[in-house]
Amino acid sequence: MGKIATRLYVEEDLAAGAVVGVDHQQAHYLRSVLRLARGAAIALFNGRDGEWLAELEGLGKGWASLAVQRRIRPQSESPDLWLVFAPIKRARIDFLAEKATELGCRRLLPVMTRFTAMDRVNVERLRANAREAAEQCERLDVPLVDPPQPLAKLLESWPAERPLFVCSERGAAPPLGEVVGASSGPSIAAVMTGPEGGFAESELATMARLPFVTFVSLGPRILRSDTAALTALAIWQSVHGDGSARPPSPASAQGESQPDLAD
Amino acid sequence: MGKIATRLYVEEDLAAGAVVGVDHQQAHYLRSVLRLARGAAIALFNGRDGEWLAELEGLGKGWASLAVQRRIRPQSESPDLWLVFAPIKRARIDFLAEKATELGCRRLLPVMTRFTAMDRVNVERLRANAREAAEQCERLDVPLVDPPQPLAKLLESWPAERPLFVCSERGAAPPLGEVVGASSGPSIAAVMTGPEGGFAESELATMARLPFVTFVSLGPRILRSDTAALTALAIWQSVHGDGSARPPSPASAQGESQPDLAD
Repeated sequence: MGKIATRLYVEEDLAAGAVVGVDHQQAHYLRSVLRLARGAAIALFNGRDGEWLAELEGLGKGWASLAVQRRIRPQSESPDLWLVFAPIKRARIDFLAEKATELGCRRLLPVMTRFTAMDRVNVERLRANAREAAEQCERLDVPLVDPPQPLAKLLESWPAERPLFVCSERGAAPPLGEVVGASSGPSIAAVMTGPEGGFAESELATMARLPFVTFVSLGPRILRSDTAALTALAIWQSVHGDGSARPPSPASAQGESQPDLAD
Repeated sequence: MGKIATRLYVEEDLAAGAVVGVDHQQAHYLRSVLRLARGAAIALFNGRDGEWLAELEGLGKGWASLAVQRRIRPQSESPDLWLVFAPIKRARIDFLAEKATELGCRRLLPVMTRFTAMDRVNVERLRANAREAAEQCERLDVPLVDPPQPLAKLLESWPAERPLFVCSERGAAPPLGEVVGASSGPSIAAVMTGPEGGFAESELATMARLPFVTFVSLGPRILRSDTAALTALAIWQSVHGDGSARPPSPASAQGESQPDLAD
């Protein structure tokens, strides 16, 4: 068996000897995009059992079966970092879900604020983007994507032990890097970004009264919502998350020359 | 005069009493997108003279003239941070130019590497994206965009005093945040990201011999080229750049309620 052709997320349990199926879209990808044949090596993960080497056993129109062989990486979780964001227009929200996944965000929480321009969110689409990004970036978990909820409801039910860093464009908030660098304690957090119109004064006033909220700055420029979210995630990961961890060994790499995985 | 309707970059010198024109695209934007009328307040910057308050004096099909009134911000330069990147496909490169500008990058240098899939770069298009992003994010300068050049040529003519942080997906490179945090000396730097296929072994070997090159890691996940570039820029700005500086006063803000600027 040669190098691993691709990585796929599956729902099913993974164990040596198991035979698992993939969904219609993944089967199409294997057959019509990658044009794989029986015997191709594919890496599988399900968010629970680590990463497994599997062999493409059967392949047809809309279906594929994979024989699970051996585990090539133990399960690892992404840092406990959430992103709370006001939905933005389609191309940018797709991009945001992809990038937040690459940046190791564990949960995406769309929130409806007063100046949020979008009135609905395609949660299934965001989940598909997150899954595909997880497959690409070699995560072993896929971020949760919550249904959208109003800001007031989100704040009411917020877990008090989780610091919420609210990115505010204006005023004298301290830089996120400084705030996070100074903090100790458990490495759990959430960053929140508002819509293009920013937060309403009343929303800022409400959040200012909450013990778990810290307003933070991302520097002197006025960032778009998607840029602000990615910047905040990148800074938190660098200072407090897994920014200092190393990539997986090339054994599970894609698109590069790799050691032969046959036993 | 009410709040500032928009910000525009112009080539001409800015001084009290000057009357400046804008280009065809900007005139169309003022007239047909923003539907502004004579007397509208517009902020102007040229990368040299700071930000100026101007009044829309005349407006027609493809032209507009603006009466420059008074300076509302002194000139400031973005940190001396460059981005060297292997060109990626169109939607992502547009996005990269926009985000790099928002993240305060001073110069964009497309570089052709062995595994770069794109054989040409629309430099004018990148410049337009950078200008528009600078107008939006309230920068007072617009990043330079170089024509693409081969990696070998770039390295030959590299200014030795500028550290070049090369983002490498694999191996034991130290995290960018640690490397940058530990460094002192002048705050000038460049970050470099490779194409989706990564750098060739020969390219890595060549760069490893150069005194100004430091290989850095961006964490355990395999990031897309555009994500890697933005993550590196965000981390450098947070640690060593202007990440701790504050946004401009709301006087020059867009899209929010602002103090009336009339004298």
